[in-house]
Amino acid sequence: MSKPLLQVALDHLDIPSALEATRALADEVDVLEMGTILCYAEGSKAVGILRALYPEKTIVADLKAADAGGTVAEIVFSQGANWMTVICNAPYATMEAALEVARKYNGDLQIELYGDWTFDHARKWREIGLTQAIYHRGRDAGLAGQQWGEEDLEKIRKLADMGFEVSVTGGLYAKDLDIFAGIPVKCFIAGRGLYGADDPARSARDFKDAINKYW
Amino acid sequence: MSKPLLQVALDHLDIPSALEATRALADEVDVLEMGTILCYAEGSKAVGILRALYPEKTIVADLKAADAGGTVAEIVFSQGANWMTVICNAPYATMEAALEVARKYNGDLQIELYGDWTFDHARKWREIGLTQAIYHRGRDAGLAGQQWGEEDLEKIRKLADMGFEVSVTGGLYAKDLDIFAGIPVKCFIAGRGLYGADDPARSARDFKDAINKYW
Repeated sequence: MSKPLLQVALDHLDIPSALEATRALADEVDVLEMGTILCYAEGSKAVGILRALYPEKTIVADLKAADAGGTVAEIVFSQGANWMTVICNAPYATMEAALEVARKYNGDLQIELYGDWTFDHARKWREIGLTQAIYHRGRDAGLAGQQWGEEDLEKIRKLADMGFEVSVTGGLYAKDLDIFAGIPVKCFIAGRGLYGADDPARSARDFKDAINKYW
Repeated sequence: MSKPLLQVALDHLDIPSALEATRALADEVDVLEMGTILCYAEGSKAVGILRALYPEKTIVADLKAADAGGTVAEIVFSQGANWMTVICNAPYATMEAALEVARKYNGDLQIELYGDWTFDHARKWREIGLTQAIYHRGRDAGLAGQQWGEEDLEKIRKLADMGFEVSVTGGLYAKDLDIFAGIPVKCFIAGRGLYGADDPARSARDFKDAINKYW
């Protein structure tokens, strides 16, 4: 089982705030994510800025795209994104169009799992050629008190068995990672759990220590 | 039955191109939409620019938000949006958070219908307090050959019967509106069917003529 990577979701309201976070965290994390909030606030130039500053990092554009897959993929991959997200209820045609552009740039597509998706859908995503999924406890769902549980772990295992590399996100802190022990996880994605800490770099090292302990 | 409004979806790759379209169309349409593509490309300052230029128009931020509803609603309503969209598989907590911010600004929330939503979901959206929905033939689904049909019309009627004001979008041209005759439609939303025409203002007037003919 590969060791999970650590991804920081930059869900800031402006680019300078996001860059304060990356200045503290870029040496410690594997993957930098332009969060949806940052994209809505500032647009995808955030991807180009991250690419210029961090040429060696994996960069994700978390668009959660629902439509116009080829067009929006071109926006972010042309600026240096490695991965881009689509929402799971997007039309299959949207996923196919985005994946085609992703491959042109040697990039990849990740499917964001929100709402009542099923494993029948998941089989179709594999047929289309998708190999990455993001298992999500939504930010608002987290605030509403939803916790990680055995049902989540079972779904993550099943997706992995189907051939998906599964990233995990939603209110994660280093102390939570033990519940995923033994499960293949592509990336642990955290936002405020990293840059919201008193010492963000230390928080990232705590995540890495937990990853090294359990994988 | 109220007369449907006409909405232009500005799905441009940059703000100047969008403003070329509004210069030609703003006098003819009722609602200006910052399309998701424009938002991904340029960020939500597009809303503030539209508000500054067109103080009297209804402005929609088509975010298709899936999470962090309160935060992203604040981004667009604080810049002058009247309406904002959420995607239909967003957590209910996301919809509630966005709706609370919308109401603070005397704005409203619209739910974007993509994928396998059900009328059980729709009843829940009404309970939360949502009263606007956007019935969608996705851009990529349209390119893949999906046409408007009786099944679509039946769903739109049923949503209207449940108390939703339903807007309709997806590859629409003025010549298509007759198929919706007799159905209550809040807005017809077109993008390239308006600004992609040789004479965009004329195309908008063709839409208005069709609306006046059938409603």
